[in-house]
Formats: sequence, C-alpha cells, structure tokens
Amino acid sequence: MSKTVEFLFDVGSPASYLAYTQLPKLCAEAGAELIYVPMLLGGVFQATGNASPAAVPAKARHSHIDLQRFADRYGVPLAFPAGFPINTLTLMRGAVGMQLREPERFEAYLQAIFRALWVDARELGDPVVLGKTLVEAGFNPQAMLALVGDQEVKDALKANTEAAVRRGVYGAPTMFVGDAMFFGQDRLDFVREALA
Amino acid sequence: MSKTVEFLFDVGSPASYLAYTQLPKLCAEAGAELIYVPMLLGGVFQATGNASPAAVPAKARHSHIDLQRFADRYGVPLAFPAGFPINTLTLMRGAVGMQLREPERFEAYLQAIFRALWVDARELGDPVVLGKTLVEAGFNPQAMLALVGDQEVKDALKANTEAAVRRGVYGAPTMFVGDAMFFGQDRLDFVREALA
Repeated sequence: MSKTVEFLFDVGSPASYLAYTQLPKLCAEAGAELIYVPMLLGGVFQATGNASPAAVPAKARHSHIDLQRFADRYGVPLAFPAGFPINTLTLMRGAVGMQLREPERFEAYLQAIFRALWVDARELGDPVVLGKTLVEAGFNPQAMLALVGDQEVKDALKANTEAAVRRGVYGAPTMFVGDAMFFGQDRLDFVREALA
Repeated sequence: MSKTVEFLFDVGSPASYLAYTQLPKLCAEAGAELIYVPMLLGGVFQATGNASPAAVPAKARHSHIDLQRFADRYGVPLAFPAGFPINTLTLMRGAVGMQLREPERFEAYLQAIFRALWVDARELGDPVVLGKTLVEAGFNPQAMLALVGDQEVKDALKANTEAAVRRGVYGAPTMFVGDAMFFGQDRLDFVREALA
C-alpha cells in the first residue's frame, strides 16, 4: 500500500485521543497505512506561540461540550482527568521509546495510556498512578523509567517535535496525507477524502 | 415555526462568511427561523482573552487552507482582503443600525459587505472603498455614516457583544439552538442535528 496517514499526536490532547479511536478504521477502509508520530504538544505550543484551548476559560468550557459531542457521534467513552492539562513529557518519551525499542508493544502502550487518561480519567502525572497503570497493562515501570531517561529516546521526541513545527504543525492532532496537512480530529472527513 | 438558530457573527470573520453562505438553506430545510445577531468579535476577544487564529503565524497559514477546503465543499467563492484582519467596528455598527432602522434592507447590506470582503477581497477599512461598495449596493454612504454614529446603534452593538460573552461566546461564528451553543462554521452538521 502506498497511501499513508501520518498521525502527529500527544496523549495529553483529548482531541488526539478521539482521532486515535477513529484513524485505524478509517485507514483500514481506505487501504492506507497509519503512521504514528509522537510529538510533544507543549514543545509545539512553545515554538509556534500557540496555546491550549484550556488557556481561555470560555473556550475550555465549550471545548469539553464539543469533544463530548464528537465522542457521542463516534460512540466512544470520554472522561477528563482532574489534573488536565497535564505535562506529558514522560508519557511521550515512553511512546517514542517503545517505537524505538519495542515496536511490537507500541500500540499496547498507546492504548493503555490513552485509556487511562481519557476513559478512566487517571491522573498519570502522579508517578504512583502511572506505575499502577503500566503494571496493569503488562509493562515494567522500572524498565519504562530507564527508557524515558535514555538520551536517544529524549532526542527522538525532540526531533519529531521540531520536524513537526518545521512542517507547519501548531497543535494536535495533525494528520498528513503526503504534503496535505489536516489539523484537528474534526477534520477526519477531509483526511478520508484525501485518501479516496 | 418555533425552532430558531441564533447566528452570532462578525463580517470580518471568514468563518462567519462561510456559515452565512450555508445557514439560510440549512434553516429553510429544517423549518427553523434564522436570527442574525451582529456582535463585535474584537470585543469578544478582549472580554474573553481569546485571540484570532491570525495571531499565530502557523495557524494563520493553515487556517486559509482549511477555510478554502470548506469553501470548495460548499461550492462558494472565497478570497482574502489584503488588510486582514480588519477593524470591523464601523461595518458591524452598520449591521446593527440596519436591523434597528431599516430591517427590510438588513440582508441586502449584509450580502454587500460579506461579498465585498470575502468574494471581491475589498479592503473595506478604506473609507473610499467602503463608500464605493455601499453606493454599488444601493446604499447612501452619508446616511450610513450618520447611522454608525448614532448612540443607540453603538449601544446596541455593545449590548449584543456583552450578552454574547455572558452566554459563553468566545469567537465567531457561534450558533445557538435554544441553550445549546455551537462554535464554528465547521459545526453546522451539529446545528442541523440539533434542529432535527
């Protein structure tokens, strides 16, 4: 298959979670390969001067309603962890680390983290909660800790994030079909059209 | 008809223009009344701490592409005036003034202004260009000048804007179906569902 969708995401973004729930099916139906590209949303915001919707109170309030409408449309659960917005540096280094070192377990890691945050509303910023979540999903917290401290892993996440910014990315999720960029889980229909 | 869609807009917002091109048909098909509520987007941004997408360069660039995709989908023309973003105070006072004093010509005024900005890409911030546009659409520029200087008109636009902010509005366009709020021209399908 020659068609690909690059999915640039941060697990701390509820819109990334919603896109994550839909993209595998969308790509399967279009005969396209789904390429996961972890990036650090905080780094993207810093580089572009953009900010989270959560920074504007009225927008934050409506954003919850709006995301819930899409969750209902997709038929997927959605909850919000109390500590939102959270610092995802460790979680995203974990994602890149799994891609580099244990690619066969990357999707299981991603599922465990997305589910913990946006279905079970767990505060993964708390190391105890994160450790418990990893153990439940069959991961070794000590091994993960070593992985996220690995310089090569740190550099890879930084490189992903910088490359995204160079391509014009300013938020998450962002999808690329070739050079065509699509921002937001609410643009999946345009991604589908681009694959047709 | 008891169903209504309140359409809170600013003519300086290209997304408001796109919604404006679709809402009459959408409301007609749903048997709903379309209620135009002019508000000053600059005032909304100031009150809520929100900002135009144009404030983040990467977002501004992609926003043009994204809006063009929707224009293509809707089959409507879209251009961008060189002076974007523009100060719409005079234009929006004109809109409220027409509603108050010449409601039967309000829609003709709105069409002339939206078309001049987003189809003909005219810089309406230039008084000469604005005057020419008004004359071509059959309006008397001197009468419009008097209208936008009218204290009651000024107060009405301010009242619309403050009421919008109190209801949770932080950008344009915003649609209300009863108490349900929908932000963005990309949420018209949810507006349609809310009317069903």
